[in-house]
Amino acid sequence: MKKVVLFMENGSEEMEAITQKSILSRAGAEVHIATKDGGCVTTSHGVTIGGDCSYASIRVEDYDAFVLPGGLPGSEYFAKDEMLLGILREAFDKDKIVAAICAAPIALGEAGILKNKKYTCYPGFEKEIQDGEYTAAGTEKDGNLITGKGPFYALHFALVITEALFGLVKMEEVSRGILREV
Amino acid sequence: MKKVVLFMENGSEEMEAITQKSILSRAGAEVHIATKDGGCVTTSHGVTIGGDCSYASIRVEDYDAFVLPGGLPGSEYFAKDEMLLGILREAFDKDKIVAAICAAPIALGEAGILKNKKYTCYPGFEKEIQDGEYTAAGTEKDGNLITGKGPFYALHFALVITEALFGLVKMEEVSRGILREV
Repeated sequence: MKKVVLFMENGSEEMEAITQKSILSRAGAEVHIATKDGGCVTTSHGVTIGGDCSYASIRVEDYDAFVLPGGLPGSEYFAKDEMLLGILREAFDKDKIVAAICAAPIALGEAGILKNKKYTCYPGFEKEIQDGEYTAAGTEKDGNLITGKGPFYALHFALVITEALFGLVKMEEVSRGILREV
Repeated sequence: MKKVVLFMENGSEEMEAITQKSILSRAGAEVHIATKDGGCVTTSHGVTIGGDCSYASIRVEDYDAFVLPGGLPGSEYFAKDEMLLGILREAFDKDKIVAAICAAPIALGEAGILKNKKYTCYPGFEKEIQDGEYTAAGTEKDGNLITGKGPFYALHFALVITEALFGLVKMEEVSRGILREV
């Protein structure tokens, strides 16, 4: 069983977040929505979404992938959260999948894990990121680091994470299930 | 101000639902998530999402569009809910936008509003729908009725609803904002 932690903050973008939950669940992953205190958050367009666990409860070794949706101010909260940044550093060092989309790669920059890595993000946010090579791709995968450019790419980003966790055959199976041509 | 009601049941598909909330909010619509009693629902892959209002509180004349996400058993609950079916009939008769994706068009069939209408749905569910002409398109628009085939089309379905409510220029503006090429 693959386990994924999907972080959500107040002001996280709901489509970018929930698309990961749907697609990775379809692939067979157990996806836990982690919020700061384990309670509800309110997304960037005002959806109330319940958390499954708190940041403090997360043991990195229990999970295979760590995913950050974009949205403001959610991405800025991520980038300033020392506990979250510590989790991301530990996950990266343990060669777990670490993934962020839209504005959320700023948190990967703050965690210091973009050095010598290719990444993408919502155009403009690369100016807030010191390390790494911004490629402007729709989705980018460099080793265990996966990044997405913005909302339109949320689904493809989820499928790239699916392939990284489960392989091509499962990714194509999920794609057919959602009626995406493969 | 355009107002949209997005119905959600226990077992509604979260990506199909929340994509509508994100995209239509970006267009400037006020989007209310309506649940049976106005409280939380648990989606088909286990996300807890809060409602903004109950079915009973909805006055059809206050809204411009009525949207149903797919997912099971959510779509079946929709199709058996006489209060919801009454709302859909009244909305359709008042020439409001009525939209459903994936398995949820079965509720449009139960409401009796697919007669002489082209529609699409997740392949197989057309067998549960007596009226209308199933086209198997990714998205279908016939007058004030908009239908979508399945999860992969959730975003396009949202953009078709956006264009129906706000026009082409706004739909293209939203598309550029999410980094979709237009």
